[in-house]
Amino acid sequence: MRHVLSMLVSNQAGVLSRVTGLFSRRGYNIDSLSVGTAEDSKYSRITVVAQGDDAIIEQIQKQVGKLEDVREVTELLPEAAICRELCFIKVAADARTRPEVYSVVDIFRANIIDVSVSTLTVEITGDQSKLSAFTELMEPYGILEIVRTGLTAIARGGKT
Amino acid sequence: MRHVLSMLVSNQAGVLSRVTGLFSRRGYNIDSLSVGTAEDSKYSRITVVAQGDDAIIEQIQKQVGKLEDVREVTELLPEAAICRELCFIKVAADARTRPEVYSVVDIFRANIIDVSVSTLTVEITGDQSKLSAFTELMEPYGILEIVRTGLTAIARGGKT
Repeated sequence: MRHVLSMLVSNQAGVLSRVTGLFSRRGYNIDSLSVGTAEDSKYSRITVVAQGDDAIIEQIQKQVGKLEDVREVTELLPEAAICRELCFIKVAADARTRPEVYSVVDIFRANIIDVSVSTLTVEITGDQSKLSAFTELMEPYGILEIVRTGLTAIARGGKT
Repeated sequence: MRHVLSMLVSNQAGVLSRVTGLFSRRGYNIDSLSVGTAEDSKYSRITVVAQGDDAIIEQIQKQVGKLEDVREVTELLPEAAICRELCFIKVAADARTRPEVYSVVDIFRANIIDVSVSTLTVEITGDQSKLSAFTELMEPYGILEIVRTGLTAIARGGKT
């Protein structure tokens, strides 16, 4: 099962390395991780997505919570959270294929952020199923590069 | 100076921890980090943003490049790359203030992704100056939570 953990940590050197170390020491691969400054710049928020055993994730969550610089750690359940990521995709496209690519971009409410003679760079946000559907449609043109931020998540409703 | 490093690494447990460890051992704080699957799912792409001394960053870049699971590491210069991040902001807003918040959201081409009786959750993508300008305008209403993915970056033009 996929687990999404959201952590509020002190904005200090070493925290990220200690958190990721807890996962790797258990041979637990992180699917994606994103970290950025929180509402108070003294803190950062880390979102980790990892697949696997419920018991091990619970154990990791407890151990992360015990780290000195971790203020808070919660698991966000899919039904109670909005999970999205930002993705840049560079697609091969020339004057002939550009309109075709553009029409797909439009349907997905994505944005073209850069154009060259032979390429188009698209920005798209969404959950993993939307991004997979989009990349699948881009494949016939030739995908040159994909950069993803990794999922980030926020609780639905008024809860913080 | 702000540095943006883009790395292509094997999608394996431990790589992330080794990379972040190299930064923290030098007391170098990572401003933001995002990691997601690359175009080939055997690999992940890590984007790191860190402030500081050019010489130390160059040294870190060299050492990261020597790690077994790192296939490629490049510094993306601001003028040759597109740098953006995805940000969720939960703002206090009731029936009275909702239209005001909505008009700002509209100007910034942001999206409202969730509403409750007393809150609005906004999704916005952009560079740091756009996100700062938006959060500044939201502050009078009361910012309850900010979740950021951290900057991700892609080279402009046909270069990959």
